[in-house]
Order: sequence, then structure tokens, then C-alpha cells
Amino acid sequence: MLVGIETGGTKIVCSAGTSPTDVVDVRTFPTEDPGTTLAAVTGFVARWRREAGIEGVGIGSFGPVDLDPLSTTYGHILQSPKLAWRGADVVGPIADAAGAPVAIETDVTAAAIGELRWGAGQGLTDLAYATVGTGVGVGAVVQSRPLHGTAHPEAGHLIVRRHPEDTFGGVCPLHGDCLEGLASGPSVTARWGRPGTELGDLLDRAVEIEASYLAQLVCTLVYVLSPARIVLGGGVLGTPGLLDAVRVQAAALLGGALGAHPASDPASDFLSLPGLGGRAGAVGALTMAADLAASRPAPAAPSMNEDLS
Amino acid sequence: MLVGIETGGTKIVCSAGTSPTDVVDVRTFPTEDPGTTLAAVTGFVARWRREAGIEGVGIGSFGPVDLDPLSTTYGHILQSPKLAWRGADVVGPIADAAGAPVAIETDVTAAAIGELRWGAGQGLTDLAYATVGTGVGVGAVVQSRPLHGTAHPEAGHLIVRRHPEDTFGGVCPLHGDCLEGLASGPSVTARWGRPGTELGDLLDRAVEIEASYLAQLVCTLVYVLSPARIVLGGGVLGTPGLLDAVRVQAAALLGGALGAHPASDPASDFLSLPGLGGRAGAVGALTMAADLAASRPAPAAPSMNEDLS
Repeated sequence: MLVGIETGGTKIVCSAGTSPTDVVDVRTFPTEDPGTTLAAVTGFVARWRREAGIEGVGIGSFGPVDLDPLSTTYGHILQSPKLAWRGADVVGPIADAAGAPVAIETDVTAAAIGELRWGAGQGLTDLAYATVGTGVGVGAVVQSRPLHGTAHPEAGHLIVRRHPEDTFGGVCPLHGDCLEGLASGPSVTARWGRPGTELGDLLDRAVEIEASYLAQLVCTLVYVLSPARIVLGGGVLGTPGLLDAVRVQAAALLGGALGAHPASDPASDFLSLPGLGGRAGAVGALTMAADLAASRPAPAAPSMNEDLS
Repeated sequence: MLVGIETGGTKIVCSAGTSPTDVVDVRTFPTEDPGTTLAAVTGFVARWRREAGIEGVGIGSFGPVDLDPLSTTYGHILQSPKLAWRGADVVGPIADAAGAPVAIETDVTAAAIGELRWGAGQGLTDLAYATVGTGVGVGAVVQSRPLHGTAHPEAGHLIVRRHPEDTFGGVCPLHGDCLEGLASGPSVTARWGRPGTELGDLLDRAVEIEASYLAQLVCTLVYVLSPARIVLGGGVLGTPGLLDAVRVQAAALLGGALGAHPASDPASDFLSLPGLGGRAGAVGALTMAADLAASRPAPAAPSMNEDLS
């Protein structure tokens, strides 16, 4: 059995399946303090170890998280705004409960893996996934490998050029008007005084301004990473007309710099919504588990008297 | 023998050596039309094939160049502003002349490889190299592999936030005030009416404005690629005080977003000048050749009556 764990700011989704597309069990727990939350997760893992044996576990974690296997804090949460989680060991307790190999990436990288393998990026080797919701995050697969240098992308804080009609200060506590400060869901609500789902007659202006920031994100990712597709997910992308507006503005911003690049054509599907909808991260985590299982000999089933508590 | 070829906008540097650090022959040719220029290069290659045998050739080419080995135009120049070079096959004639495996990357990627292995990035696995001269270009090594997605980075066109005191329109023919439009060598000359080496009493203001754009480039690369070091090369970096000003402004722009990241400390050497000076690209090309030679069985020496013309 494969286990995928997607940890988010408000909830943790645990999945078990025989493959990333054959999921037989999904449980969701609220994200509370690390002790309570990880106890729920390890309970799920231990149950599946007992019932069927586990071949691999994939984790898509909120960040920042230490992804350096040589680090003494590998798999621990780093300087997170979630204070209680700073320093929390995510991989350790899950690996103990599973008795199987564990892989960890950020939640957005897991979503990028899921979309590349089973969603909007099938058949590609290079894809970036950006989520625009409570925050803005980017994960990427480059030449079939998850992108991380010494750490993982933190593209929420990218510097953007302000829309000339946008006087809103931005909501980022560090920068005010970085990308996340001007384009996240909370920034939309704060700028217009109502949530993105109730913009009414403000919709056209809101879409134009939001698209101007997301188009800059698209251009930055194209210039630096050159993905074959960019998937735009997260709640803000549910805004009617937003995806098309980003396509138009991104093409205009590129200004022919990349010749016949598909991002220069607003009619292309270079920019797309997630093929897996909200399941991209969970499917990606299961895919990581499947890749681990495929690269290792099958584990022995636990003996009946082994302590699995 | 290893051969490294660095093609630039004004000259082509051909090197031959027994290793990237033991160079026994360097020849420089002007960059003219593809026929003339490639004839000079293949002459150099054929001579070394005849005299000592060639185990591998590395090319660091000006871009845009097709780096997809599965493409029918692999190793050809794409939509270059150098019109005569559009569609020119760079790899083919050199491979024919060498009778040995050939690797190609962009000039800036070759420089990143050279710096990582023999210059300012020794011991690291992740490094970005930015050159700021006639144009602005970026190459990177990520997890020990040259970065390219479906194409190579084209970071010269990154969108930057304008310095509040900078009213200069920018020199990019496509965008005006993209990064290259506002921060390349020609933009400095056009903005101030004199070359960067003769700024005199304008130096402090010029450095502050230039640093504001390069600091944005640094932050973008840190947020997206997370290199362990960024090397800043090219003629503009010879401006007195510029590197330190970029360090200070980049740290301020990050604003603590990455905690104790070394780029947040202006006294760190996270940003550095090339350890190899202007030789980074040539050394990188030789390194690519050495890696090819190490991964293949040694080639047979050409027989005396084989046509090497």
C-alpha cells in the first residue's frame, strides 16, 4: 500500500492507495499543534501498516521545510509563520510509524509532481505549479526532477511592478507589496473590502489588476525555469475570467522576447488550471510514494508481535 | 586532448588542454558570419584532432540556442538578434571536425559550470552566474546539473520595479525598461551620457540605481532557484562599489523573508565576483568536454589516411 500525506495550513489530508490513481482511503484532520496533528497522521499510517503493509510514504508539506537529506534537521519545519510548528520533525514520526521509506517535498512541489504525472502536464518533463490562495507558492519539476537548490522555491515574495491604478498597500507583513502582498486571496479581500467571490461590479477591475501580478509571475517563471506548462491553482483562480486575463497580459508582457513561445499566444493552453483540481497535492504525494516503492525491494510484512503502537 | 569553445557576440575563444586547468593553446577569432567563423573554429578543432586526438568538445554558445537533443535543430542558433546566425548549425560542423562527442550549453551556463567547479563555487552543487555587460544573462547549475527546462534561462528580460529616481526609458528594443533595458552596459551609457568607466561625480547615484536592479535579479534567483551562491560577472560589475551596493540592497529587499539566509547578510560572500575572471566560460566549456571524455571510452586515434580536412 502507498500512503500520501498533504499537510496544509488548515488541514492534513492522508490518502492510502494501491497506486496514485487507485485511492482506497482518505482521511482529513485539522492542522493543530504538531503533537496532536502528527499523532492523528501516525495513527493513520500505523493502521495501514497493520492492515496491508506500506511500501512507501510521500509527504507534501507546508514550508519552509528542510529538504536536505544531509542536514541534521532534514524533514523538520524551519522558520514558519506557524510558530508552534517551528522545528517540528515531520518525517521522523511518520517514518517510524510506517517502517517504510519516506519522501518529502513542499506541498506545491507535490502538486507539481501530481499535475505533471497525472494531470495537466502528462507527457511533459518540465512544469511549474503556482497556487494563489491564502498565500502564493510555486513548485516545479525541471527535467523530470523536483526543483530545489539549497532550499525550495519561495516565489510568494517575488518583487512585482505595481499596476498603475493600484494604490493598495499590500498585505505581506514583511514587504507590503510583494507578489503575495498584492495578489493573494487576503489581499483581494483587503483591497476591495469584500471577498473575491462577491466582487460584483468590481470584478472587471479586480481581474485586470490581479492578472497584472500573476502575468509577472508567469513571465518570471518562463524566463528563469522555462517550463513546458504552468498550472495555476488555488482559490483565487476560481475568479471568473482571471485565467484568460492572465494569458492575455502574460503574452503582452513577454512582448515577443521568446519568439513563438506558447506563452506568447493567449489562445494556447500553456497556462492551465489544475487537471486534478484540489487533489494535485495528494496525488503528487502518492506518486512520490510510488516512486520510492518502485526503487526499492518490497518490504517484508511486519511480524504479528512487532510493536506497531 | 579536450577542446572548449566559447562563442560570444564579438569573439570566439577556442581552448585546448589536457584538463580544464591545464590549457595548452588558446586562439581567439572575431565573430563574423557563421561560415567564416565556424571555418576558423573547425580549423582549430581539426588541427588538434590531427596533432593529439580529441576526447571531447564543450561549447558555451551565445543564445538562444536549441539545447534539446531530441530536436531536429539541436545545436542550432534560434531567433537570435544576430540575423546572419539564425538557424546556423553550431554543433554539427564542430562534431564533424572533432570526430568526438560534443556538449553544448549557453555561454552563461558554461560560465556557471566553470565557476562551480573551478572558481567561486567550488564544493557547491547549486550556483547561478549572471553576466551584466552588453546584455544581461543568467546561467545556473541546480543540484549539480545545468539548468534548462524546455529552453535555457532568458533572465535578461525579467520585469523589474523602477528605481523612484530613475526616469530613463531603457534600451531594450522589445520592452524598454526590462532588466536588460535598465541595467545593461549600454543602458548605463545611455542614461548618463557617458560610459560606466567615466561616471565621475555621477558614480554614487549611478551605483545606487544600478544596484537596485541587480538586487531585484538576485532576489528573483534566490526565490526561484535557491542557489548556494550567485556570481556576478560582466563588465558592469567592474564599477567601483557596485558589488557591495548590490549586497546591501538585496539584503534589504529580502526583508527577512528567508530568515538567516546568507543573502540577507551584506557581509557574506553569497554574492561574489567570478573566481575565474573572464575565463569562466572557457573553463566551463573545457569542463563540459572533460565530463564527456570521462563518461565515454577513449576514442581511437584517427588513422593517417582518414580525411581530416
